Amino acid sequence: MIYVIGIGPGCRDLMTQEAISAMEDAEVIVGYKTYIKLVEDFVKDKEVVQNGMRKEVDRCQDAIDIAKTGKKVAVISSGDAGIYGMAGLILELITKQELDIPVKVVPGVTASIGAAAVLGAPIMHDFCHISLSDLMTPWEVIEKRLRLAAEADFVICLYNPRSKGRSEHLANAFKIMGEFKDGSTPVGIVKDVGREDQEKFICTFDTMDFERVDMTTMVIIGNKSTYIHDDLMITPRGYTV
Amino acid sequence: MIYVIGIGPGCRDLMTQEAISAMEDAEVIVGYKTYIKLVEDFVKDKEVVQNGMRKEVDRCQDAIDIAKTGKKVAVISSGDAGIYGMAGLILELITKQELDIPVKVVPGVTASIGAAAVLGAPIMHDFCHISLSDLMTPWEVIEKRLRLAAEADFVICLYNPRSKGRSEHLANAFKIMGEFKDGSTPVGIVKDVGREDQEKFICTFDTMDFERVDMTTMVIIGNKSTYIHDDLMITPRGYTV
Repeated sequence: MIYVIGIGPGCRDLMTQEAISAMEDAEVIVGYKTYIKLVEDFVKDKEVVQNGMRKEVDRCQDAIDIAKTGKKVAVISSGDAGIYGMAGLILELITKQELDIPVKVVPGVTASIGAAAVLGAPIMHDFCHISLSDLMTPWEVIEKRLRLAAEADFVICLYNPRSKGRSEHLANAFKIMGEFKDGSTPVGIVKDVGREDQEKFICTFDTMDFERVDMTTMVIIGNKSTYIHDDLMITPRGYTV
Repeated sequence: MIYVIGIGPGCRDLMTQEAISAMEDAEVIVGYKTYIKLVEDFVKDKEVVQNGMRKEVDRCQDAIDIAKTGKKVAVISSGDAGIYGMAGLILELITKQELDIPVKVVPGVTASIGAAAVLGAPIMHDFCHISLSDLMTPWEVIEKRLRLAAEADFVICLYNPRSKGRSEHLANAFKIMGEFKDGSTPVGIVKDVGREDQEKFICTFDTMDFERVDMTTMVIIGNKSTYIHDDLMITPRGYTV
């Protein structure tokens, strides 16, 4: 049995009841070491298998191998396990290896939802998620999505917006979206959502400061109706108020 | 003080700790009557203000008027309050009326995330949310978003896919997306996510049965890499497995 659990943005308060129950029920907890730290309370009496970044396939295969022995395993992802998390990889491996291991995906609050609550209500209308990581997705595909999403006037949430190895991606993304996003479009930035050192910053498309952004930051770009009021970013749904 | 709370798709297990604490802390609970039923356990000793569909502005104004008297009010939305929920409307009213009432948006698991966990892992790559309700959004805007989202090869999650009053919208949406979505593209349908009568159905774009869908259904259309395996719908992230 494998639980694939989204633990939310990183504080206990934003975990679901089901995520907590599943971690309690598991005998072995498998995860990226940074995320294991976030659930320390739940792993005290458990066997823990943790490893570093870019070891996702090994980590999921480890979880599967342990589950094969009959143990209940919890694989944890931050946010939601089904959004750029481990749910897909676990299911891909299990289906390709034609294994008969029950898998339960336990949903969680993803970073865009956590960040939106901190900013006010920026994703009240149609929105999309785009990851700027080109480790597994060709940059041309990312560019195309950015351009069409901006043309469609979606609110756009950027995941993995900027790492040390590709610090220029975010600025390039803004250049592409700039064909359709006006300079006055509100942009919300939240670093370390739900964690102790959470930081929030609201600016506009043409005053965007890329240096504020790293891999633990969520960037949300508004649509044509989004407005800023004091320290809030609000996208109207369309009610007459 | 107003809490705007996303209670998740509708079962206690998918509520966050923070949602439960906020409901417990509130003196008055305000919500659409169907959602009030979902949180019966938490409203027993509280004042409850509930009303029907399309009364969103009245409901939010009621909550604000009660909060003005100094009471702690919880406005509840199903899913996440910041996604087609009440967070935006509460903040719009408060900012337009220049009131000084503290608002805390409490994030929740939105329907697409809940449905995705039931289907397997369909939203593992870039995706978007589009509401097919044209009550407050011109249909031309919805059409444009559908076309561009399909062209961008997003996984597409449809909110408010089909009501009695506009039963043809979903078929029209499929016609539009069909310019770019292949007939073999997997489509996942989940009705009443997280509730007792939850139903799940997986088909392909060209075998879609629109009659299965109503307003409490989530429809998720895959991207070019999405595949079906037994009763699972999986969108690979791009790992080599």
